Amino acid sequence: MKPIKVGLLGVGNVGGGTFDVLERNQEEIRRRAGRSIEVVAVSARNLERAKTRTGGKVAVVANPMDIVNNPEIDIVVELIGGYDQARELVLKAIENGKHVVTANKALLAVHGNEIFAAAQAKGVMVAFEAAVAGGIPIIKALREGLTANRIDWLAGIINGTTNFILSEMRDKGLDFATVLKQAQELGYAEADPTFDIEGVDAAHKATIMSAIAFGIPVQFDKAHVEGISKLNAVDIRYAEQLGYRIKLLGIAKRAKVNGKEGVELRVHPTLIPSKRLIANVEGAMNAVLVQGDAVGATLYYGKGAGAEPTASAVIADLVDITRLATADPEHRVPHLAFQPNAMTNIEILPMSEVTTSYYLRMNVKDEPGVLADLTRILADAGISIDAMLQKEPADGETRTDIIFLTHQTQEKHVNSAIAKMEALSTVGGSVTKIRLENLS
Amino acid sequence: MKPIKVGLLGVGNVGGGTFDVLERNQEEIRRRAGRSIEVVAVSARNLERAKTRTGGKVAVVANPMDIVNNPEIDIVVELIGGYDQARELVLKAIENGKHVVTANKALLAVHGNEIFAAAQAKGVMVAFEAAVAGGIPIIKALREGLTANRIDWLAGIINGTTNFILSEMRDKGLDFATVLKQAQELGYAEADPTFDIEGVDAAHKATIMSAIAFGIPVQFDKAHVEGISKLNAVDIRYAEQLGYRIKLLGIAKRAKVNGKEGVELRVHPTLIPSKRLIANVEGAMNAVLVQGDAVGATLYYGKGAGAEPTASAVIADLVDITRLATADPEHRVPHLAFQPNAMTNIEILPMSEVTTSYYLRMNVKDEPGVLADLTRILADAGISIDAMLQKEPADGETRTDIIFLTHQTQEKHVNSAIAKMEALSTVGGSVTKIRLENLS
Repeated sequence: MKPIKVGLLGVGNVGGGTFDVLERNQEEIRRRAGRSIEVVAVSARNLERAKTRTGGKVAVVANPMDIVNNPEIDIVVELIGGYDQARELVLKAIENGKHVVTANKALLAVHGNEIFAAAQAKGVMVAFEAAVAGGIPIIKALREGLTANRIDWLAGIINGTTNFILSEMRDKGLDFATVLKQAQELGYAEADPTFDIEGVDAAHKATIMSAIAFGIPVQFDKAHVEGISKLNAVDIRYAEQLGYRIKLLGIAKRAKVNGKEGVELRVHPTLIPSKRLIANVEGAMNAVLVQGDAVGATLYYGKGAGAEPTASAVIADLVDITRLATADPEHRVPHLAFQPNAMTNIEILPMSEVTTSYYLRMNVKDEPGVLADLTRILADAGISIDAMLQKEPADGETRTDIIFLTHQTQEKHVNSAIAKMEALSTVGGSVTKIRLENLS
Repeated sequence: MKPIKVGLLGVGNVGGGTFDVLERNQEEIRRRAGRSIEVVAVSARNLERAKTRTGGKVAVVANPMDIVNNPEIDIVVELIGGYDQARELVLKAIENGKHVVTANKALLAVHGNEIFAAAQAKGVMVAFEAAVAGGIPIIKALREGLTANRIDWLAGIINGTTNFILSEMRDKGLDFATVLKQAQELGYAEADPTFDIEGVDAAHKATIMSAIAFGIPVQFDKAHVEGISKLNAVDIRYAEQLGYRIKLLGIAKRAKVNGKEGVELRVHPTLIPSKRLIANVEGAMNAVLVQGDAVGATLYYGKGAGAEPTASAVIADLVDITRLATADPEHRVPHLAFQPNAMTNIEILPMSEVTTSYYLRMNVKDEPGVLADLTRILADAGISIDAMLQKEPADGETRTDIIFLTHQTQEKHVNSAIAKMEALSTVGGSVTKIRLENLS
């Protein structure tokens, strides 16, 4: 069979990696796909650099629309990133009857419903393994490997930058700002790290996984997004003493509130038991833990970023598309795992309705009755205490830290208990609240 | 679309689980597959029990051939196990133009080449996710998720019984026989545990994975198969002191010997660094670590056995087949990941040609010159020492244990060094040899 023809929009880090791996492993890939996969054109802002990068072997164009409109090209690989231009290019490629592969989680988390509907109408595929957890085939696992299951929940370390920062903070006892600076120097964090450290990137990925896991539309605007920039080194230490590690998790979970089904979709720093495998995922690595009703817990671990790990996912999609390019749409895996006419719209719960456990730290006057007041507030709110850690005041100090770990409760109850605690004259400043998941 | 019709050969543990999950999640599964998947008949030796198990909802027959020859049935699920009858049934099902799903690793590791060739010739699919690592979608990951990669090696904890025994031996300091007895009482080990504890089951699974990873035929007869029944509790303790855990690994690895490509295919107890994620896979859980040239290391973890975890894999295969049942064979994923006309036949290396590191323990007279003799033997064989552990003799004892960890070397060199060590008058009994993999 003649080669399938690919155009790359962008030939930077991931685009360059995709080009390299397709060339290096072309024989291996052809033996699997049954057909050669050939990059015939790339678009790039810097034409000279792109020509050098691709060794003069393919056409290099400045305008990505020239790739999208090139009738010779079967599959467009979108690696530009961002929202507006990427959306326009992807929709145009679909309109032109081309299949699309994208690593762009932001695009799919925000414009995914529109894009998948357009692809469905046109009978083309939009594949996006590279958009979540880099080289780990988690989209394939969720969408195809676990089809027997009602997925109960998933929880993932899906942002390498923040996991690197948290690992360093714990290992070296350093504070957030210091480690962020080091991470930027090492290239693990970008010059503007906002998307990573504030949890936006993880929330994009969690949004995509929630859709696939539960058969709901992507709804990024309803995700709870909370990063690690306000995380205090002291809480990492206290958590460790209590047998927990703090990770930035992206969580998607089925829930029932007052008998009504809902979905929790949230990204935030989370205490998890140190002995869990996922608690030991260190540095820039990614892992996703998925709980299905038949299979139980399964975990997927690997590199969540980088040129060739991401290229690995892009090319896996290219091979899948190559196999199914001429198949009837019914033979293909639905974009969001469920048939388009079989999606549901279970509501994403507001954070106040979420049920989880909590780590609460407060600084208190070391005097009789303080603990009684605090535990009374928790009891009145119907919150039971799972563990408590009270530090001795340092020499000459009259104040100390108290930490409570609670059993499961709704966030709104915890928030109102915190407000009451903060109103006590014995409690100084604000109460630190970090969510806790046992993941079992 | 009308339902796809399934016949189960065997309705015991996994068959019953498959029946239950298909029924419980039928709505969820139909929403994914686009078509209902319906069990219409089962075969069982005990008809009454099978009727009770299936609630009288399906036809129950005594002769599995009646399922295989039933023109109404589209997919036959073989859950009988064993070699001869299973082979006959699967080949007959294929001949009758039916797709097959099987959880039978023994069958595929031994008769896979014949079965896949027959399926290919007939244009039907034989799917076997459940044959390796239960509910973990490792076949899908290797066969589809990592298609961009040249797979360098994979190493898996792929037998839950032995991993449970090893975890217990380490946790409780007990010896093999005691823990095996407990495992049998708890139902983690069978009455005749030979296949599990002697590594045969793991070797079946490693054989299947080696074929998919490298595009070679299944060659179980060439696998090195070594179990844990001779493993001594003292070696687990020494390994721990040296920073390692002992796991029964199934390993498939590309190698080069004298410039010629080969494949290592081996199952044996293995020291691995305690800090590796896979070293912390405990109890009856399974995990497979895969090293690809583009993606790096990825790990897949979950339950490797049990009714519903295995059913999860069986049903994922049913959904895949349902999607592709009427597609042209070229749209399907090749049985062994590579197109049938693009398989290679890289030789499986004999164990003497394998290169790895070693843990060597010997009991020696505590007298001058012994260490010099031993290290001289290793040096003469070109084997470098990575670490050494020498225990003080117990009070009143004149003998002690010495442990060497070696750098990488070929097994034949280690074997000849061991023969020389055992010939020393200062070395008592035989030298214990356990292989060591850094998995990095």
